[in-house]
This record gives sequence, C-alpha cells and structure tokens, in this order.
Amino acid sequence: MRIMHTADWHIGKQLNHYRLVDEQWDAFNQLKQIAQTEHVDAIVIAGDVYDRSLASEDTVKMVNEMMAELNLHLHYPLLVISGNHDSAERLGIGRQWFADKQFYLKTQLAEAFTPVVLADTQFFLLPYFTPHDAQLYFHDDTLKTMGQAMARITATMQKQFLPDKRHLLVAHFFASGEQTTSTEVGGLNAVPLPTMAMFDQVMLGHLHSARALLNDKIKYSGTLMPFTVNAANQAKGVRIFDTNTGTNTFHTIQPLHRINVLTGSFADLIQQPPALPVDDFVAFQLTDQQPIPDLMNKLRQAYAKQRVLSVQRQNGLQSDLNQVEHTVDVQKLTPMELLDGFYHDVMQQPLTAMQRQLAQQCLDETLKEEK
Amino acid sequence: MRIMHTADWHIGKQLNHYRLVDEQWDAFNQLKQIAQTEHVDAIVIAGDVYDRSLASEDTVKMVNEMMAELNLHLHYPLLVISGNHDSAERLGIGRQWFADKQFYLKTQLAEAFTPVVLADTQFFLLPYFTPHDAQLYFHDDTLKTMGQAMARITATMQKQFLPDKRHLLVAHFFASGEQTTSTEVGGLNAVPLPTMAMFDQVMLGHLHSARALLNDKIKYSGTLMPFTVNAANQAKGVRIFDTNTGTNTFHTIQPLHRINVLTGSFADLIQQPPALPVDDFVAFQLTDQQPIPDLMNKLRQAYAKQRVLSVQRQNGLQSDLNQVEHTVDVQKLTPMELLDGFYHDVMQQPLTAMQRQLAQQCLDETLKEEK
Repeated sequence: MRIMHTADWHIGKQLNHYRLVDEQWDAFNQLKQIAQTEHVDAIVIAGDVYDRSLASEDTVKMVNEMMAELNLHLHYPLLVISGNHDSAERLGIGRQWFADKQFYLKTQLAEAFTPVVLADTQFFLLPYFTPHDAQLYFHDDTLKTMGQAMARITATMQKQFLPDKRHLLVAHFFASGEQTTSTEVGGLNAVPLPTMAMFDQVMLGHLHSARALLNDKIKYSGTLMPFTVNAANQAKGVRIFDTNTGTNTFHTIQPLHRINVLTGSFADLIQQPPALPVDDFVAFQLTDQQPIPDLMNKLRQAYAKQRVLSVQRQNGLQSDLNQVEHTVDVQKLTPMELLDGFYHDVMQQPLTAMQRQLAQQCLDETLKEEK
Repeated sequence: MRIMHTADWHIGKQLNHYRLVDEQWDAFNQLKQIAQTEHVDAIVIAGDVYDRSLASEDTVKMVNEMMAELNLHLHYPLLVISGNHDSAERLGIGRQWFADKQFYLKTQLAEAFTPVVLADTQFFLLPYFTPHDAQLYFHDDTLKTMGQAMARITATMQKQFLPDKRHLLVAHFFASGEQTTSTEVGGLNAVPLPTMAMFDQVMLGHLHSARALLNDKIKYSGTLMPFTVNAANQAKGVRIFDTNTGTNTFHTIQPLHRINVLTGSFADLIQQPPALPVDDFVAFQLTDQQPIPDLMNKLRQAYAKQRVLSVQRQNGLQSDLNQVEHTVDVQKLTPMELLDGFYHDVMQQPLTAMQRQLAQQCLDETLKEEK
C-alpha cells in the first residue's frame, strides 16, 4: 500500500500576527491533489494538527472540515496522533465514533498498543507523551528519559507484531543519535534511533524539516509550509511510503505566499523594491551600519502590498524594532555569553577585561542570592 | 416510541466555585437508570450541554464520555442541539461522523430543516439561533424578532412534514405567551407559542424549571439538578413522551448533594447546626437585625463539612459579605436607584432630599463629561 506521511500542520498558526488561513487551505488542497495523483491508500498526520492546545472556533471548524473532506468525502483512511501542540482532550473529541469510518485518532498513550491493521500493514499510533506518562502507564518510575520510555514502549508494541505484516510506527518527538541511554546526543528529551529499529518504517512529527533526520527507515515529513524565515527556502511537502517497493518519496507543496528574504541597503530596498506577489511575506537583511529612524514604518510603506515579517542587520547591529528574527537559541547561552553578544551588538566592540570582571562579580552575587 | 426529553445539562458548571463533577456524574447515572427502567427508545438533549462555550479539558472529556456511554455503549439514539451556553463550533466537532451511530447533533440553523426520522417520528432539531442568523439564512432582513424568525422557520419545516409521522421539535429558547408579533409578552426575545402549533410535541431547553411552561404540547424539561438557591426545592429530572399514547411524564432525579436553605438567627444556626450530609450545599437566611462581625468565617467553621453558598438577610439588611444572592437585576436599575438601594442597605434610612439633589448633580456632571 501507498501511505502518505504528513505532520505538523499547525492549523491556526500565525506568522507575526498574520493569519495563514488561505495559505493553510491552499497547502491542504495541494496535499489532496498529491494524494489523488499518487493514488495513496491512507494518510498519516504525525501530530501537531493544531498550533495551540486551545484553538479558536474558526480553527476548530477548519480542522473538522479538513478531516471530513479527506475521510468522509474522499474516503481516505486517516491515521492521526496528537502532538505536543495539540490538547489531547480537545483533539480527541469524538474519536470513539471516527474509527468506523477508518479515521483512527489516538491521543492517549494507553491507546498506542492496539495496532490498526490496514491491508499489509500494522500501524502503531503513538501520541505525544512524556516519561511521566510512561511511568504511570507501566507503573514503573525508573523510566526517567524519553529513551528509557521508548525502549519499553516499543518492546511492548513488538509483542503485537504479526510476522506477515509490515510494522509501521507513527510518533511525535525529537529523535536523534545512536545512544540508548543518551544524555549526550540531544539530551534527555531525545529518543535514540535504536529504540525504533524493529519497525519497517517510522513516520515522525515534531521537527519541521523533512531532512531533520537522514535515516533510511526513520523520517520526518516536515511541515506543509515554511513557518520561519530560516525555513523560507526549505522544500516543504509530504512523503509517500510504498510498502511493496519499500521506497520513500518526497512530494513538494508550493507555498501560496512565499517568505522572501531581501538583502541590501535600506536605501536600495526602499527605492527599488523588487516586484513581489501581493500578500507575500518579506524578511529584510539590512547591510547598513547606521541607526535608521522610523525604519519599520518606511519599510511597511514601501512594501505595503506584502506582509513584513522581520528585519535583521547583517553586520551585527541590533535591529531598531521588536520584530527580530533570532537565529541563535538564547536559551542555550550562558548569562555572560548573552551579555557579550548584547554589548557587541550595541557598542560594536567587545567587553574590556575590566568590564568583563565587573560583570562576572555582579552575576556571581546574583546567583548567590538566588540560592 | 418513548422519547426521553432532557435539557440544560450545563456540564462543567460550578456553584460558588464549587465544582459539580460528582453531582453531574450522579445525575447522569440516574438518567441512564431511568432510560433503562422506562425502556426509552431515544434521548433528546435540548441545548446547553456545556455550561460555557470554552469548557475545560476535563469537562470536554466528561461530555465526550457521557455521549459515548449513552450512544456507543448503551446504543440509544441521541438527538442533541446546541444551546446559547454552548459553542456551536466546539460542541459540533465530529458531528459528521456521529450520525452513522444515530447520534444526531445539530449546531447550525441550516441543519435544522432536514428532519431525523426514527420509527414513527420526524425530529426537527433546531439549535440555538438569533434573529440575525435567520436573516442570513433566509436572506430576509425583515426577521427582526424571535417570533418572526420562528414563524418563518416552522413554516419551512412544515413543508417537510410526512403525514403518517409524528412531528416533534427540539429547540432552545424562551417560549412564552400567545402573541404572534409579541413585544408585550416576554419581549422581543420570546418565541410565541402559536408559531409551534403544527408540532405534536415540542421539547425545549433554556428555562431551568420543568414547570416553566404549562402547555400540553410545548414543554421544558428543566435541568438535571438545582443550580440556584431559589431552585433548591424544585423537582428536577427528565420527561418522557410516548408517541403511542401521547402522554408526557416527569421522572425525578435526586440531587447527590442538596441545596439546604437554613433560616434562623445567627446564634441558633451556629450553636445548633442541623445534621446535614457531608458536602451538601447550604444557603443561609438570617433573621438577625445587627451587623455580625466575621460572619462568613464563623458560618464556614460551623458548617465545615458542608459547602456554604450564600447568606441572605431576611429583614432587608444587606449581607456582610460578598456571597450575596442577588435577586434584583442590577443591570436594569438607574444609577440613582442603585445609590438609593445602597444607601438604604448601609444606613437603614433613605436619602434626604438634599443628599438626593447633590447626588443627582454629580451624576449629571459625570454624564456630561462622558459625552
């Protein structure tokens, strides 16, 4: 059978407060088209159907309509799990009624151990879970890490394997590395790949790039469209796994409105704006050194028919506005690294040895007080 | 056939911040018991399944479990509409899948005109709507009142009537009076009874008393339990309509925890508290004239095993605490009436002519500034 693997739809998501309703419907329609052209036999959504656990009424309606379209009107079997962005309870409403129409929606760990069998394949649908969920389910508080929990979960699933069927896992987490008791690769939250080695194919959600993991059997499908400036030029789409041939192919979805990253001087970008489709998104990378008064308003005027996402200074000077695309994960920096970067951005020179020493003293005292 | 008529479940409701989870499950279990003992063939919920449009995850789960229990496990056909407390979109999730199991859930006016036929009866399921909804649906902006809208709606429904079937309407609104273009009885929001005269039986939700309307064919079922002190001693339960005999019977549900209204002096009520079941609710009506310091804490200590809802002074003196049962709709009072009442409550005497004149001047100036 031919199984379409999708994930991370994030219906209801906004980019800088711009709603993506048209964009998400368009991507959905392309997905439908691919399903039909490629004659798929089932469609998987590997978590994060919604962008937020508490979605708006409009968004709830949109998801309900999309599922009805695929399942009730086009008669595709649907295999869906909840991701960390979904509310398991809210996404799970009505799921007891859905299975009769081959809409298999699993939102609780306890539901993951009864596989869905379609044609030649056993589908194990594992919703987003935490080690704590696994501790409760197995009555075993030694399951401290995602790796420990997954080893236990997949061993339990394996007991259900029928020898004449393909075994397919759908899950939503950060998979990485080769360590079984990994605290090194990806930290405690990463699921080591060997815990999933018994499956013929693993369809993952959570990471937004289809190339986040380069493994023959374990793959992310990525999102249906780019959600960040960094992902502006990433190929987005869906995967199709063929259980007969064992092949896994990627099928691109073109964004209705692209994220255009424009690099240049402020003067050039304002005076000679490139011709861009209406409603496209724009992210600026300015080469200017000087502060620019009223920068954002001027950019918004020059690009009034597009939607401005962010402005970044290429040469290290911090942007003049709130909408900055942070390319560094600030969570991972030490306080001193943060200060270094901030000082350099503002003053265009590093901290002196004396400044650094004073700062370190202040930090030490603050940390002492916290204890 | 024998049809159980229920309404206004208000799952998730709290009384003075006390959750009613146990109470609502208990009422639900009694309802199930009645359905089985009375051999009903279908169960109606005439709106306000939820207490709030945005229910908690726990509440969503609870409703989902109750519906699954009645429909999937006990195999009762379920006929449900949204009420004004429900979010049509959120309650309506999954309804396209439910009908196959005879769970008929209607949340949009447009869905009301296709009757559900079960055995000898056509069910017209009319969710909560506003005159504006009717204007949009009929493309007719002359439908200004609920009466005008309902006349149009029921005339449209009547065209679908099959002569050999019973015709039953399920709806959620304030029905009252005999005027067809009523601005007198019940105001613009009331639905006149004659607009529903073509139905053999009308099962309503919205008003919380089963005796809110004394009409042979048009009835409220009321809530499953009392939700206010005023309703403490009202009979609560469900109705059963028998299409063969045309009879309509009421079947009581006993509250798991009663609302006990205790009248007496503070001293007596504190010193000789009556024996009440643990977790029962208590509302006090004090006969005292004097202010009582620390009243609420003392009552809570004396009734530590019960749940105190409210304290009211029988003799007009305003209560000393926040938890007052307001019997007057303050929204409808003028500022001067509010001041009059407040002054009287605090000072136990009316405003003097001079005071009244000064207050009026202040009010006039304030209103002038607002313009």
